[in-house]
Amino acid sequence: MNKSTQTLQAAAHGGAFHIEDIYPLIDGGRFAVKRIVGEPIEVWADIYRDGHEVIAAALIWRREQDSAWQRVPMTHVVNDRWSATFTPQQLGRHAYAIEAWTDEFATWRHGAELKLKAGQDLSLDALEGAGLLTKAQTDDPEVLRLIQQRCEEYLRTGDITPLLSPELRDAMATSQVRQDLTRTDPLPLTIDRPRARYGAWYEMVPRSQSSEPGRHGTFRDCIARLPDVAAMGFDVVYFTPIHPIGATNRKGRNNALKAEPGDPGSPYAIGAEHGGHDAIHPELGTLADFRAFIDACEVVGIEVALDIAVQCSPDHPWLKQHPDWFKRRPDGSMKYAENPPKKYEDIVNPDFSCEDASSLWNALRDVILFWAEQGVKIFRVDNPHTKPLRFWEWLIREVQLRHPDVIFLAEAFTRPKLMKGLAKLGFTQSYTYFTWRTQKWEIEQYLRELTDYPERDFYRPNFFTNTPDILPFHLQGGEPWMFKSRLVLAATLSSTYGIYNGFELLEHEPIPGKEEYLDSEKYEIKVRDWDKPGNIKPYIRDINRIRGANPALQQTSNLRFLEVQDPNVTGFVKTSVDGTSAVAVAIALSSDYHEFWLPLGDVQIEVAGERRPVVAVENLLTGERHALDWGGINLRIDPHRDPALLFRCLA
Amino acid sequence: MNKSTQTLQAAAHGGAFHIEDIYPLIDGGRFAVKRIVGEPIEVWADIYRDGHEVIAAALIWRREQDSAWQRVPMTHVVNDRWSATFTPQQLGRHAYAIEAWTDEFATWRHGAELKLKAGQDLSLDALEGAGLLTKAQTDDPEVLRLIQQRCEEYLRTGDITPLLSPELRDAMATSQVRQDLTRTDPLPLTIDRPRARYGAWYEMVPRSQSSEPGRHGTFRDCIARLPDVAAMGFDVVYFTPIHPIGATNRKGRNNALKAEPGDPGSPYAIGAEHGGHDAIHPELGTLADFRAFIDACEVVGIEVALDIAVQCSPDHPWLKQHPDWFKRRPDGSMKYAENPPKKYEDIVNPDFSCEDASSLWNALRDVILFWAEQGVKIFRVDNPHTKPLRFWEWLIREVQLRHPDVIFLAEAFTRPKLMKGLAKLGFTQSYTYFTWRTQKWEIEQYLRELTDYPERDFYRPNFFTNTPDILPFHLQGGEPWMFKSRLVLAATLSSTYGIYNGFELLEHEPIPGKEEYLDSEKYEIKVRDWDKPGNIKPYIRDINRIRGANPALQQTSNLRFLEVQDPNVTGFVKTSVDGTSAVAVAIALSSDYHEFWLPLGDVQIEVAGERRPVVAVENLLTGERHALDWGGINLRIDPHRDPALLFRCLA
Repeated sequence: MNKSTQTLQAAAHGGAFHIEDIYPLIDGGRFAVKRIVGEPIEVWADIYRDGHEVIAAALIWRREQDSAWQRVPMTHVVNDRWSATFTPQQLGRHAYAIEAWTDEFATWRHGAELKLKAGQDLSLDALEGAGLLTKAQTDDPEVLRLIQQRCEEYLRTGDITPLLSPELRDAMATSQVRQDLTRTDPLPLTIDRPRARYGAWYEMVPRSQSSEPGRHGTFRDCIARLPDVAAMGFDVVYFTPIHPIGATNRKGRNNALKAEPGDPGSPYAIGAEHGGHDAIHPELGTLADFRAFIDACEVVGIEVALDIAVQCSPDHPWLKQHPDWFKRRPDGSMKYAENPPKKYEDIVNPDFSCEDASSLWNALRDVILFWAEQGVKIFRVDNPHTKPLRFWEWLIREVQLRHPDVIFLAEAFTRPKLMKGLAKLGFTQSYTYFTWRTQKWEIEQYLRELTDYPERDFYRPNFFTNTPDILPFHLQGGEPWMFKSRLVLAATLSSTYGIYNGFELLEHEPIPGKEEYLDSEKYEIKVRDWDKPGNIKPYIRDINRIRGANPALQQTSNLRFLEVQDPNVTGFVKTSVDGTSAVAVAIALSSDYHEFWLPLGDVQIEVAGERRPVVAVENLLTGERHALDWGGINLRIDPHRDPALLFRCLA
Repeated sequence: MNKSTQTLQAAAHGGAFHIEDIYPLIDGGRFAVKRIVGEPIEVWADIYRDGHEVIAAALIWRREQDSAWQRVPMTHVVNDRWSATFTPQQLGRHAYAIEAWTDEFATWRHGAELKLKAGQDLSLDALEGAGLLTKAQTDDPEVLRLIQQRCEEYLRTGDITPLLSPELRDAMATSQVRQDLTRTDPLPLTIDRPRARYGAWYEMVPRSQSSEPGRHGTFRDCIARLPDVAAMGFDVVYFTPIHPIGATNRKGRNNALKAEPGDPGSPYAIGAEHGGHDAIHPELGTLADFRAFIDACEVVGIEVALDIAVQCSPDHPWLKQHPDWFKRRPDGSMKYAENPPKKYEDIVNPDFSCEDASSLWNALRDVILFWAEQGVKIFRVDNPHTKPLRFWEWLIREVQLRHPDVIFLAEAFTRPKLMKGLAKLGFTQSYTYFTWRTQKWEIEQYLRELTDYPERDFYRPNFFTNTPDILPFHLQGGEPWMFKSRLVLAATLSSTYGIYNGFELLEHEPIPGKEEYLDSEKYEIKVRDWDKPGNIKPYIRDINRIRGANPALQQTSNLRFLEVQDPNVTGFVKTSVDGTSAVAVAIALSSDYHEFWLPLGDVQIEVAGERRPVVAVENLLTGERHALDWGGINLRIDPHRDPALLFRCLA
């Protein structure tokens, strides 16, 4: 093709093929699809070109840092829609793309076969086919031998038949130049470890873990608490910030503007003479103590999550080392954080677009890398929605290129599209509105939104029942059935969920009229009796055990609500990713006695590679079995005994 | 910002804003949205950034060949969704894009107002605001005067109020540097003339227009036919190919492999000693005669459409001038067109990817440009789906850059995605499956597909009742009510429709068992009595007159089906683009007597800028009026009298 033709063809800015409506795909490939390592990924696309030629297509993929593509042939399913499946075996950023080309030999063969059937003369066709065979580009001796053999046979007999053999067609499919090759842009894909999707989180404030009233808790106290947390079945212990706390403008108890002597301050006012984001608050212990805590967690199968809050106390070392990272007011004073008319005078926010932004961005990245090197692989990011979107997109990529096992949880409670935007740009998991969703219709509507495509491919919910900042109204009555109902909702609707400590003790004292804790440990040290009578620790343990034993509860998007007639009972079924396990759940949303029908007639599970209807269920707490009767089961819930029923489905 | 920061920020490959879910958009901007000149285009997008800053957005657009963008501010509607409307006033390729930025002064002002309300000290805020004012970048003396005046007032009094004035906010909105400016890629848009969407086509074979049996028709005969065609109300006369017809391997009557002496051959076997695609078949007349025909059409308000079939007869001059444009077989013989086992020995297809493809592509483009310069602005392209997609994308762009008023109709009867692909890449209009859709459910389902988004923004249907190649089974009975029913379906469901001549005479003689005309004029010359008794010309005239008088029928996508209980009556309402006109239609699909209810209770039309419910309808044929009773009207159709009812809606 001469140069002028190349220009002319480049003007037609497509390839020979249209490759359209690719699934999965987020915003046309602008953002990465998120999947779990070792799980198959089905890819679909419309693929077509002009004419009647036989075409072929392949799905190709690689880790971003690899240069060689892996490939799998795509299959035509129906109506120009093609599909293929691949299974990434490594963590990290991947790319996938689709290639399509014309199979010249198969096209020739198809025409020749039709003419043969119609009894037409094929002498020229045979010559043309032999001509195509001479153009095979392969070093494979088997293929070369096959071609030579069939050509000789044809030349000897003059009969076209040897050239039409299926083996020759298959050999040529991989041995000829791929005419009209068209390849899509590479599409981004993030492969995470299973913990990115499945885990029970326990949030604790480490300084409150001392067992003696008045004494500041330490990492050693936290280690002592681990058997209790592990016994409840939690997978992740998440610490509020562990860094030195500033003294300047320190907040007092209940968020008082001025601290009293002895008040410990908010752990979110990060940085003091002892250091900043890569230092440890001295009263908690040393870095060695912290590493000992990580080791102790590992022994009981728990991971540690740290809280990353970008803001600095006025005493943070960065304010002296990098004054240019922070904005000042016209009188030279520090520009404190504010959300007018609210002021946060114990913290200042670095200026992400300051002159020296690159060193600020790199320093923040290095903070994460520092903790990752200490063995922390989960970071809960505080208020990411008030820092630049492109900063997070850059930071998460920088960290995950070095540590593809690192998980970022976005603590953004803001407008829905901004929350989704953070998930799109790379946050592994996201906080949600679950904490405030109490009515059946709004719970079901919200879950449908989260498990719909494309949301399910970028937004991984982490359902928290409560947080240090949020004591929702429905918990303020302190009713055990409500705490249990909220726990099971969080733990079964979402495969990742969490409680903030004290929930197991039914703590529920609010600042009157607000959804906030009275005497919040954000501003003071608390010492609790972790075995306080009335606690629901055994209940939590049971639910977490059931989650661990049932793969159906270890994912979120294979969720289907069931038609339950009771307006205060939600019923749903979840199927495991491989389809072999299903769990049906019914949860009461009001405290009255419920009797209702749970329809399970159309639930199926895979047994020995075959989809079979569910015929019975087994109560996951009691072991009792019920056969399905008329396609469902009749159930009773007394919320005061237990607001939830969980069943394993049997086929 | 230093260089290293730029690199680092480029790594985060987004801007400060996410601009998502843009409407309208075809395949993420890969293909152009199609609209009509002078009609407003609403654009929507999700626009957000981090934080609580006041943001602003603009919709910008231009013709592709212009360098300056026009712009209109976007308005925040709800939930981070923004909108704006623009109205292109010129034909041709356009681009539009969205810009978003942070309004620094408005952000400052918003914070200051909240603090003012909370009674906080504002002295530093006032200084900060004044500082922003000094950064205004404008030459507008009004704005500069306003800034100076308000600053002086503030300095004189120390009071912040003058800085908070709304005039200052508005002046600064356009006068400050647009911080964090983020702009989407330009998105393609094709602006066509109204004929691209609305027109009644009359297809004729010019050589059959003679009035004396045995004489080859000429352009002069065609001119003589124009009053008849114009009286029926057609807008476009579409000619099958008018070029010299090859003699080699010429097809005989009824597609016989060998022509008898005197057989005229198929006009689709293009090219002979007299020339190729830019020449005229001598028996039709001269180029001057053809131009005379165009002029005569113009007088009666009709446009001419030519048929572009890329293939060549073996006698086409290109075969001698450019032998390298054509493939040969191993014995040196010509590679004729084929679709195995079918052979088309009277034509050869040029090889679009031959060595010298650029000169071939340019030659084909020059053919279109030649006819465009003769005044032909509508081209019906024969079988575009068997030529490369990127060739058409290039060709249509090349032609429309020079002649933005040129319309291309894709005659592709093939798989749905390939048909849609041709529409996406640039064909102005497309043939459809309408010709074979006869049942109520399939008609309604197909129309819903065509009028859905995004189809309605790239696929403009042209509904043909019949073509020289297709005499559908349902017309083979020759029943007048069926011809009328099909005519009204085509003419009211789609704003562009066509008939192939002979339809008005109820021609219906098939090749037995096939959907093809017996004695097709593709292979012979026909002479007809155009006033044959039983013709439905007055009916066609009425329908086309009603189309012309009612803008609601001049578009396709504002179509809504009405719930008609009769399984053989389809009912629908169409509203004009500006909402001021609505037409309700009921059409019988079977010949029996129908009595049914047409619900019109929720139809609204705009009167003096206000949406009002329809209260009555006026029969567009008889002028009779019916008031709505219980939200609808009771109707009767006797198909043998008239299978359709058309009403103008009155509010």
